Amino acid sequence: MGGYRILVTNDDGIYSPGLRLLYEALRGLGVVRVLAPETPKSSSGLGITLHKPLRIEKYKLWGDVEVYATNGTPSDTVYMAVNLLEESFDLVASGVNIGDNTSIQVILSSGTVGAAAQAALLGIKAVAFSAAVDEPEQLSGDYASRVREASRVIAEWVLENGLPEEVDVLNVNYPPPSKWSGLVEVAPPARLRYLQKVTENVDPRGKRYYWLYGEPLEPEKDTDVYAVYVKGAVTLTPLSLNLTLLNGAYGRILSDLEGLRKELVRVLG
Amino acid sequence: MGGYRILVTNDDGIYSPGLRLLYEALRGLGVVRVLAPETPKSSSGLGITLHKPLRIEKYKLWGDVEVYATNGTPSDTVYMAVNLLEESFDLVASGVNIGDNTSIQVILSSGTVGAAAQAALLGIKAVAFSAAVDEPEQLSGDYASRVREASRVIAEWVLENGLPEEVDVLNVNYPPPSKWSGLVEVAPPARLRYLQKVTENVDPRGKRYYWLYGEPLEPEKDTDVYAVYVKGAVTLTPLSLNLTLLNGAYGRILSDLEGLRKELVRVLG
Repeated sequence: MGGYRILVTNDDGIYSPGLRLLYEALRGLGVVRVLAPETPKSSSGLGITLHKPLRIEKYKLWGDVEVYATNGTPSDTVYMAVNLLEESFDLVASGVNIGDNTSIQVILSSGTVGAAAQAALLGIKAVAFSAAVDEPEQLSGDYASRVREASRVIAEWVLENGLPEEVDVLNVNYPPPSKWSGLVEVAPPARLRYLQKVTENVDPRGKRYYWLYGEPLEPEKDTDVYAVYVKGAVTLTPLSLNLTLLNGAYGRILSDLEGLRKELVRVLG
Repeated sequence: MGGYRILVTNDDGIYSPGLRLLYEALRGLGVVRVLAPETPKSSSGLGITLHKPLRIEKYKLWGDVEVYATNGTPSDTVYMAVNLLEESFDLVASGVNIGDNTSIQVILSSGTVGAAAQAALLGIKAVAFSAAVDEPEQLSGDYASRVREASRVIAEWVLENGLPEEVDVLNVNYPPPSKWSGLVEVAPPARLRYLQKVTENVDPRGKRYYWLYGEPLEPEKDTDVYAVYVKGAVTLTPLSLNLTLLNGAYGRILSDLEGLRKELVRVLG
């Protein structure tokens, strides 16, 4: 305890109560730097900014805490932090996001998990924290205390024990306040959480516009969505960024693709 | 042949020669719809747009082809296409991207692969195509012919044979024109492709700004980066979006995390 270097970031921006909560949860564990987007960047995924300049502003928030804000994405914050704030970090903690990050569909689009994933690619232990609430105001009172305490315990455990081998990111989701059961579950992600739809409308000038929205699907058993929303469990989901199924299926996949490979060689030869 | 419904999209925008090339490669295979971002959205990952309205404009390009342009991301195009253009698609083909999409680091930030991944989550066969060129102008002449021919063969093969079980996206990278060897390889992604750095500079008003850039790392053997840049191979990388290592390592990971789970139950109980 005490000597760890921790980066706290998020995708909801520096004024989110989730960022402050996470800072307060972790500040006793060492040197905690805070660098986050200045405005919300939800659903930015692992996007990074290569085509325009990035700014950093230093603020004093939450009493007297140095908070750095950037116009970049959550992923950018990780690269900026390791280049500009500290040489490296023992932990990148991202969140606490307002809204859950459950299911592969949501996880892969999530800026909160995206920042953690970028950290993992740099070899830094990474935990993403999200709370299944609709509004920032719900992250308060008793609920906030429990989320704060759990986040501290999780971060400290990961700092001391590391993540299991082959795990890149620990994705933590807190259940809705009304459903909190006290259970803690390790659960894999569901594949889909929403049926994505598009509404069509007409603006005041008579021009058509569209808006994407998701209709929640019935949660499948033994998934993160089920654990969070049906069981009311604090849910730990170990994520691997290995995209190749190298352990097991890869041999079969290679032989499945051999026909295509040969066909291409023939056509291009 | 002939009856397939295909969506062609990209992340470089509707004026990229890679989009036109892909359309021309696939138009013989069935009904090919084109819906893509109106401006380049590189490094947008799987980001989707939930917080603002989306527009669609219809253009006639490339002679007399209907091309739909949106202010949304590559991922948005998939959701818009299945809601507004066709009920579903037999194939989503994304690209041809100007620049390679090799390594997990790049793949996870890639809008080209992101659009394909969103399609895969909807159960649609998905192929991402990228060419290791620096400038759009390089996608011309002999090189463009070979890329066009190979893309058609790949799409047709996937339409007829499907992707191997557990594979969500086939990620295709074409080698640089100067290195094209005629080899075709199936290769897993490298983990990292770049060492990300930040330069610091001062704008005309005296304010500091930063710019992210990547220094290419030495390519590791038996990876997509090596196959594309060292061997000059057309490289096929099967990607799975299963983030959980369910086949094999998950049991161990569960038991590794049991200590943390118990600790949390104790603290929260």
